[in-house]
Amino acid sequence: MKRIKLIIAYDGTNYCGWQIQPNGITIQEVMTKVASQVLREKITIIGASRTDSGVHALGNVAVFDTTTLIPAEQISHVLNQELPDDIVVVSSEQVPEDFHPRYCESSKTYEYNIVNSRTVIPTKRFTNYFVSFPLDVEQMRKACAYLVGEHDFASFCNVRTNVEDTVRTITDIKIIKSEEDIKISITGNGFLYNMVRIIVGTLIEVGRGFYQPEQMKQMLEAKDRRAAGVTAPAHGLTLVSICYK
Amino acid sequence: MKRIKLIIAYDGTNYCGWQIQPNGITIQEVMTKVASQVLREKITIIGASRTDSGVHALGNVAVFDTTTLIPAEQISHVLNQELPDDIVVVSSEQVPEDFHPRYCESSKTYEYNIVNSRTVIPTKRFTNYFVSFPLDVEQMRKACAYLVGEHDFASFCNVRTNVEDTVRTITDIKIIKSEEDIKISITGNGFLYNMVRIIVGTLIEVGRGFYQPEQMKQMLEAKDRRAAGVTAPAHGLTLVSICYK
Repeated sequence: MKRIKLIIAYDGTNYCGWQIQPNGITIQEVMTKVASQVLREKITIIGASRTDSGVHALGNVAVFDTTTLIPAEQISHVLNQELPDDIVVVSSEQVPEDFHPRYCESSKTYEYNIVNSRTVIPTKRFTNYFVSFPLDVEQMRKACAYLVGEHDFASFCNVRTNVEDTVRTITDIKIIKSEEDIKISITGNGFLYNMVRIIVGTLIEVGRGFYQPEQMKQMLEAKDRRAAGVTAPAHGLTLVSICYK
Repeated sequence: MKRIKLIIAYDGTNYCGWQIQPNGITIQEVMTKVASQVLREKITIIGASRTDSGVHALGNVAVFDTTTLIPAEQISHVLNQELPDDIVVVSSEQVPEDFHPRYCESSKTYEYNIVNSRTVIPTKRFTNYFVSFPLDVEQMRKACAYLVGEHDFASFCNVRTNVEDTVRTITDIKIIKSEEDIKISITGNGFLYNMVRIIVGTLIEVGRGFYQPEQMKQMLEAKDRRAAGVTAPAHGLTLVSICYK
């Protein structure tokens, strides 16, 4: 038995997110079916990040255990031959048996793509959020400065049943503007449920002047979801990469 | 009766190109149906560029005549309310009755998007051509220099029934490389059938070392389709804009 780590890219448009669920087809479900079929054994795939419906990935990570004799590095090619066009295994490699994509310490980078324009560009409609009112990127950058570091992000987390530790560390936020494209790149050691989308939704409200950058401090201190801005739509979000220590 | 000029953006993925044809749904067909329904009269739409199946547009141009009392600038909004998500009217304006989108002198700009990578990025699969072997962009730029200017582009044109004048002028070709993305932007006063896609296919073969840049000269002189490279796939191509004198 060996443990295989996959890096997976996908277009999340046609999936109900990563995790297997009864309401629709998911990436984990397709991966599990294809891997089980191709490797001719029952495969259980564990993902690093349970991305939401419509969220994309360039580098989600997943592992599974297998007895296959196919060399670890070849498994990606074998899987890609059977996977649909919207899911691609970027690489496959053997990892130690105690490697777990969620419990091992890691740093994740997400990217959120905004087009700041009054006109929707049809080819970008599944990957970019179109914001028609003008955004002040400098104000958004000032707001980011309050979020970088270790904070209690309870205000930037949608409600879940279990109370848990809501302290996380954001190591970097970059906003890159190129003509009407605005790309927000966020790196951190872990993210709460919808945290990136709420941060982006709040930054957009700063950019349009609804909040002042300094108000980010009070939002964090409130530890109350109602203190922060709206949740930005899923389709603008891409999980770019996950680095393990 | 007034003549209305539209600028239209679309995602060509799900259409058999611009022009109405029996084999499948086209952009012209959808535009005609929606305009006729919304304006409550029989509308005939004439497009500037009959883009191929799978080709996208940021700024194709079309005109139609109407008796509607809706102000010209408002027609875009009215159409967009009924159009599917993959077709967007960017603007609408009244133009002189003798304005014809194909016969009036114009300059067109096309963009071709390549990802030079061994890994396909699923979200880019409908808008970018993935080339896995490394491309030498400097060699491609040298080859472009031979194409700019007025030339007989017979070698860069797929066969059509009618013999016609195959002399065209390319005013500019730019190749912009950013990490693994290569964008080829071509501007000219008119393009033959498949001309941009054959130029791009040939430039890719220069980039991989199959042709030397200097060979472009002989290709042009040959005036024979077989002298140039392959036709690059449609889905990497976008009609960016059409400027009328």
